[in-house]
Amino acid sequence: MATDLEIIASLIRPVHDFPKPGVLFRDITPLIGSPAGLRAVTAGLLNAVPGDIDVVAGIESRGFIFGVPLALELGVGFVPIRKPNKLPGPVYSQPFDLEYGSSTLSIHQDSLQPGQRVLLVDDLLATGGTLVAGAQLIDQVGADTVHVSVVIELTDLGGRAKLAAQRGIVSVTSLISY
Amino acid sequence: MATDLEIIASLIRPVHDFPKPGVLFRDITPLIGSPAGLRAVTAGLLNAVPGDIDVVAGIESRGFIFGVPLALELGVGFVPIRKPNKLPGPVYSQPFDLEYGSSTLSIHQDSLQPGQRVLLVDDLLATGGTLVAGAQLIDQVGADTVHVSVVIELTDLGGRAKLAAQRGIVSVTSLISY
Repeated sequence: MATDLEIIASLIRPVHDFPKPGVLFRDITPLIGSPAGLRAVTAGLLNAVPGDIDVVAGIESRGFIFGVPLALELGVGFVPIRKPNKLPGPVYSQPFDLEYGSSTLSIHQDSLQPGQRVLLVDDLLATGGTLVAGAQLIDQVGADTVHVSVVIELTDLGGRAKLAAQRGIVSVTSLISY
Repeated sequence: MATDLEIIASLIRPVHDFPKPGVLFRDITPLIGSPAGLRAVTAGLLNAVPGDIDVVAGIESRGFIFGVPLALELGVGFVPIRKPNKLPGPVYSQPFDLEYGSSTLSIHQDSLQPGQRVLLVDDLLATGGTLVAGAQLIDQVGADTVHVSVVIELTDLGGRAKLAAQRGIVSVTSLISY
């Protein structure tokens, strides 16, 4: 019988030249489209969460898909970290570089309480730019990113080292590495 | 003791003049940021789902927040309906008008099987433009939108009548109406 990780790995589809020529994109839509896949990835991420999480933050928009079920299972709230001009209240914003291009993320200034222990969730850890920006925003609100959970890690791109060097985050879980 | 609906209603924050002057925006971030709110809204949406759902489809990106937990609870897969240039595989696309502005949604052509019974989820039913476009995409893939679930309905904007008139969808649940 296939393990959860084997199920997850088998449901991630490689797509060449997306979103740009030369990029190999890891498509998680078959994973979440499968009942067994969705259940396995939620269970896998949940198993790796350390104790004492006060809130889950997820990065728009695939971080919402994987983060919200964790918040429900942990019995905590969910804070969305979003693209510009999406959050209606006062925000902090953080520009950052992506594997291809650049972007900006925002968080509601009143979304977290100082000292809260935050689990930060996204689908992918590549260069780490997105997750470092997310952790910076959590820091600006006065909370602490105590763990980062992603489904996929592209190990050659150095995101794990960047999270450690730039944000002091060493507690990082990825389920599948390439 | 407050009912689930009272809890939900108390956690939706009105924001004036967002995203444009004159618009009263209903902000669901306090709702999902609250453990009790997130639990109540998931339970409330789940209670109203008819039997025999094969798959949940959610509209980017707040539809992901409310749709994924329903897919997990129902034991089915989740299909994202996304903004342009986000899905890496071959897509169908549908332009549509919003309460303010216009946009386009896309769905993977291989995301659903013909005849599948789909629960379509978003945060808000306003003019119905977004959900009608979502149902059109589900139709293009050959599946059936058998129920629409939203958290908030703005009744004066006629979205419910539009879903019935344009897509024949009369099975619609909203938890909170204004």
